[in-house]
Amino acid sequence: MTAYDPDNIFGKILRGEIPAHKVYEDETVLAMMDIFPQSKGHLLVIPKATSRNLLDADPATLSAAMPYVQRLARAVRKALKPDGIRVVQFNEAPAGQSVFHLHFHIIPVYAGTPLGSHGGGRADDGELAEQARTIAAAL
Amino acid sequence: MTAYDPDNIFGKILRGEIPAHKVYEDETVLAMMDIFPQSKGHLLVIPKATSRNLLDADPATLSAAMPYVQRLARAVRKALKPDGIRVVQFNEAPAGQSVFHLHFHIIPVYAGTPLGSHGGGRADDGELAEQARTIAAAL
Repeated sequence: MTAYDPDNIFGKILRGEIPAHKVYEDETVLAMMDIFPQSKGHLLVIPKATSRNLLDADPATLSAAMPYVQRLARAVRKALKPDGIRVVQFNEAPAGQSVFHLHFHIIPVYAGTPLGSHGGGRADDGELAEQARTIAAAL
Repeated sequence: MTAYDPDNIFGKILRGEIPAHKVYEDETVLAMMDIFPQSKGHLLVIPKATSRNLLDADPATLSAAMPYVQRLARAVRKALKPDGIRVVQFNEAPAGQSVFHLHFHIIPVYAGTPLGSHGGGRADDGELAEQARTIAAAL
C-alpha cells in the first residue's frame, strides 16, 4: 500500500497550518465539521497518529479512536436530533477516500431528506461554525 | 433509545440458533458473510457483547472490535483484491440499520462496479461459503 504522505489536508490541519471548524481536540483526536457535508452536522473524527487509512493503522489507534466516535455521535444526536447516524470510513479512492489520513465520518440522517453527495458543495462557514459550537456544547 | 432486544437475527446466530457463513469466531466477535451483499466479499463483524448499535455500546466493546475489523478488512483485501474497502456502521432504521445488534460492515469496492443496494437480493449459499473459506484462509 502507498505510504502515508504528511502533505495531506488533514495533516496540515493537525499541524495548525490551515484552519478548521473544530468541535473537539485533545492529544489523541481532532473532531471537526466536514466542509463538504452530506447532511447537516456531518463531522469527522481524525486520529492524530498518522496512517493512510484503517488498513495500515496501528490497532491501538483504532481502539483509541472509537470511544471518541461514539461520544461525538452521541453529541450530534443530542444537538441536532437526527433520526439516525451513519459512521463511515473509506479506504482508498475507489471506496470514496479523498484525503489520505485516517478519518471517520459521522453522518446524521434525517428521515425524508436524502444524503447529499460528498463534495456536492462547500458549506457556508457561518453555518459550520454554528454547528460546531452546538455539537461541542452537547459533548 | 430503544433497549436491546435479544430476539434479533444476529442474537440468534450468536446463540447458535440459526446458521451463518462464518469467517471467524472467538469469545469477542463473530465475523460472517452478509447474505444480502452489496459486493462480493461483503462481511459483517459482530461483537458478542450486546448493544443495539454504536450509540448504546460499552466503549470497551467498540475498542475491542476495531482491531478485528482491521484484521478482517486486510484478509478481504488479500483474498479478493478489491480496489478499496468501505467500513460502515448504521445507527437506527433511517440510517440503514435493519438488525438491531451492533455490527460493522466491511464492503469491498471494485473499480467500475457500482455497489448493490443492501437487501437487493439474497446471495447464493455456495458462493458465500466459498468466499467465507477464502477470506478465512487469508486471516
